Amino acid sequence: MLISRLKPEECEQLLARLRTGRLACARDNKPYIVPIYFAYEPGFLYGFATLGRKIEWMRSNRFICVQVDEVVSRNEWTSVIVNGWYEEFPERPEFSEKRRHARSLLEKDHLWQAGYAAYQVRDQRQPTPILYGVHIEEMTGLRSSPDHAERAIMAGFG
Amino acid sequence: MLISRLKPEECEQLLARLRTGRLACARDNKPYIVPIYFAYEPGFLYGFATLGRKIEWMRSNRFICVQVDEVVSRNEWTSVIVNGWYEEFPERPEFSEKRRHARSLLEKDHLWQAGYAAYQVRDQRQPTPILYGVHIEEMTGLRSSPDHAERAIMAGFG
Repeated sequence: MLISRLKPEECEQLLARLRTGRLACARDNKPYIVPIYFAYEPGFLYGFATLGRKIEWMRSNRFICVQVDEVVSRNEWTSVIVNGWYEEFPERPEFSEKRRHARSLLEKDHLWQAGYAAYQVRDQRQPTPILYGVHIEEMTGLRSSPDHAERAIMAGFG
Repeated sequence: MLISRLKPEECEQLLARLRTGRLACARDNKPYIVPIYFAYEPGFLYGFATLGRKIEWMRSNRFICVQVDEVVSRNEWTSVIVNGWYEEFPERPEFSEKRRHARSLLEKDHLWQAGYAAYQVRDQRQPTPILYGVHIEEMTGLRSSPDHAERAIMAGFG
């Protein structure tokens, strides 16, 4: 297996193509990971959730990490890690433009609908929709590809 | 989309079946996520890495979180989150039995080999193999399944 670093534009391409990833937040130095839906634009990720541990923790500590990957097989995958910080877009006039923009990106591919429905069922109560952004501070990515021996095995010449 | 909580034994079944996941650690309240290979046995996960940010951070703060999932489609997935703490198994006589055990589990499916090769190439140097365990303190899991309307659409009756 050969591992190479992604260029910044390759990291961006993966973030732009994928819609799901994992977000880690931390409180009292204890990390917590949850799967998320997101929408990307240069410098930002946008997400949607209802109030729960993730939102409470990010409100108390805005540092977060997001990881996305595309896995073909154990030897062939691409992974990007984003470090950044959380910003919530509350239902207040000064955030209305940001909310509109985030929601329009999240409504593509029905992300909004899927996330909303999930929380409705899980919590058995009327959820409060929370829109947030992730300010991207750092992006790093790795790609693995099978080496010659592995390619030969996969092709049946092993 | 309908979301239900997994029973403890269903969480265990997913951990026993999968071999890859994401691990989050934290330092100075900044979280960091990396993909990992792991082996499961009741109460424990075992992993393997070379020295790098993940190991340095876990040495300074043993609290970690591991997330695994099996995704069929956006509406059909299973996800388990493990909270626990890190224990390293250094090359010292008192850890030899734990090292042997961890390595035997990780050698199944060639996990050891894959992880080792990856780091060799990435770091361009002789890596120091580090074996570690995760003491599982808490496991929670969710499963989503399409609701009736979604099933109808998927079946072509929408």
